[in-house]
Amino acid sequence: MTEQPSSFAIGVDIGGTNTKFGLVDKRGNIWYQDRMRTTDHEQVGTFVEELYEKLQPMIEKIGGIDKVKGIGMGAPNGNYYKGTIEYAPNLKWKGIVPIAAIVQEKFGIPAILTNDANAAAQGEMMYGAAKGMKDFIVITLGTGVGSGIIVNGQLVYGHDGFAGELGHVTVIPDGRQHWGTGMKGSLEAYCSATGMRLTALELMEKNPDADTPLRKIKAEDIDSKAIYDAAMQGCGLCKEVFEYTGNILGLALANFVMFSSPEAIVLFGGVTAAGEMLLKPTRLAMEANMLPIFRNKVKLIFSDLKEADAAILGASALVWE
Amino acid sequence: MTEQPSSFAIGVDIGGTNTKFGLVDKRGNIWYQDRMRTTDHEQVGTFVEELYEKLQPMIEKIGGIDKVKGIGMGAPNGNYYKGTIEYAPNLKWKGIVPIAAIVQEKFGIPAILTNDANAAAQGEMMYGAAKGMKDFIVITLGTGVGSGIIVNGQLVYGHDGFAGELGHVTVIPDGRQHWGTGMKGSLEAYCSATGMRLTALELMEKNPDADTPLRKIKAEDIDSKAIYDAAMQGCGLCKEVFEYTGNILGLALANFVMFSSPEAIVLFGGVTAAGEMLLKPTRLAMEANMLPIFRNKVKLIFSDLKEADAAILGASALVWE
Repeated sequence: MTEQPSSFAIGVDIGGTNTKFGLVDKRGNIWYQDRMRTTDHEQVGTFVEELYEKLQPMIEKIGGIDKVKGIGMGAPNGNYYKGTIEYAPNLKWKGIVPIAAIVQEKFGIPAILTNDANAAAQGEMMYGAAKGMKDFIVITLGTGVGSGIIVNGQLVYGHDGFAGELGHVTVIPDGRQHWGTGMKGSLEAYCSATGMRLTALELMEKNPDADTPLRKIKAEDIDSKAIYDAAMQGCGLCKEVFEYTGNILGLALANFVMFSSPEAIVLFGGVTAAGEMLLKPTRLAMEANMLPIFRNKVKLIFSDLKEADAAILGASALVWE
Repeated sequence: MTEQPSSFAIGVDIGGTNTKFGLVDKRGNIWYQDRMRTTDHEQVGTFVEELYEKLQPMIEKIGGIDKVKGIGMGAPNGNYYKGTIEYAPNLKWKGIVPIAAIVQEKFGIPAILTNDANAAAQGEMMYGAAKGMKDFIVITLGTGVGSGIIVNGQLVYGHDGFAGELGHVTVIPDGRQHWGTGMKGSLEAYCSATGMRLTALELMEKNPDADTPLRKIKAEDIDSKAIYDAAMQGCGLCKEVFEYTGNILGLALANFVMFSSPEAIVLFGGVTAAGEMLLKPTRLAMEANMLPIFRNKVKLIFSDLKEADAAILGASALVWE
């Protein structure tokens, strides 16, 4: 980062709790960044006001709004075609929120919206582990499971802008009921952080004599990190949670591979901190469930972008595309 | 078909038993067509020789090879990128067969190869039920289950040319073992004509007292037509076969929708002759297994191309693309 580039993009990652944003150049350098609480705003109007005020000093530092090519935003249930956030269960703003239009009006520059996992995929393609790839899938493993799919070098939006909801595909028919959607046996019901907690609790209940450090933790505080830490200390039950999770994730990934035959699947998000503990059973199950012509070809990798930066980078990448 | 157009494409559909081919204009009119037996040829070389000889008089009728822009071919396990048929279980030619290069050499015009279901999808987009659509999926329901996926108006080939093997996705983990692949619970294991026969036989065994006309037929002769005919005569067990098949097909289709959010799913092939008997349970299961944002949006339709013509049309469509 020596000389200041001639143009910038603003990247905004709208999460259920926090919103992160920054000024990014085309090479993926984040020049300035900050965050604010999404939950402070009952209305999208005051949210955009605060975002504007927080960004103003940064924009001045780089020479004014004329230097900014546009604003890219990632948000849960963000619709690329319409620029709307639609019925996002984790946001306070209900119904259909035309946030791209509001932001564009306020800032006076183009605003582009997509869902958070699509933004992550765009970021991986421009700056991350999938740089230069034309066919890959990003799976975000966090509180929920999201996905962004790239085919022929383009994000797959589908006819209505909602493509890539792979967290909600059914993996186990009549399986575990999802706490939010009510649907049974979805990928997210098992392979999100929430799903892993449920798996741990189920195994603890089924094996009342199993000795595990998780019993010292309150049920609601059991997360993928606690399960990982215990597994690293030798807890067999916790290792079993990862085996179980990886088996289901790998089965789902095998199905995705037979759909779009990607060069790589990039895993991203908090759950991936478990590293090989998760990756090994996932890879085994993926390979076992694919037709032979697909085997030993698909790279299963972790994102190498810093998670805090990746969301901003991915959102800003929408502007350059 | 009044005046002869200035240029033509040759469409060739290579099936396990027969190969159909014809001279097609850009509007989808088949001017001349014929067929030959694929199984007569132990070697691809003699196959191409016979194809050349059979096509020669047709080519002369339209004014010579200069009027032909290219040859499009659909074949099981056809690879678009490499022009090769790779390890096709239903063909006598083993290993990797560079058929596009051989055909191109023989005819002296460009030859393009893809798999048969991709060719069907291309045909549906140019001439069929998906005319003008940019995002749709074709599912072929015949002896096997194949698929061709269109995203952003383009066939999805993936990084290696093998994308779209949706017949082999796992729908029921640890479910019925596939007779060919050995994999368990794949879509093809249930929703192909072969899968439906197995379902009928299973139901007959489980319900020895059930009165069904199928008991008068030899096990190997039970096909989707026989099951359909009996269901139309009121056979409850046969109706159950369609319910069961539709349930599994609909569940799989719901997963596909959450991947690429297509405008339509076009069903194609022998099994679709069952019409609403199959479509109704499929549609119900598909809608029930999708996230609400996808519901009541996706058209589930049958191909309206004549099956005999569709394969030739689809293969020829590759030339114009």
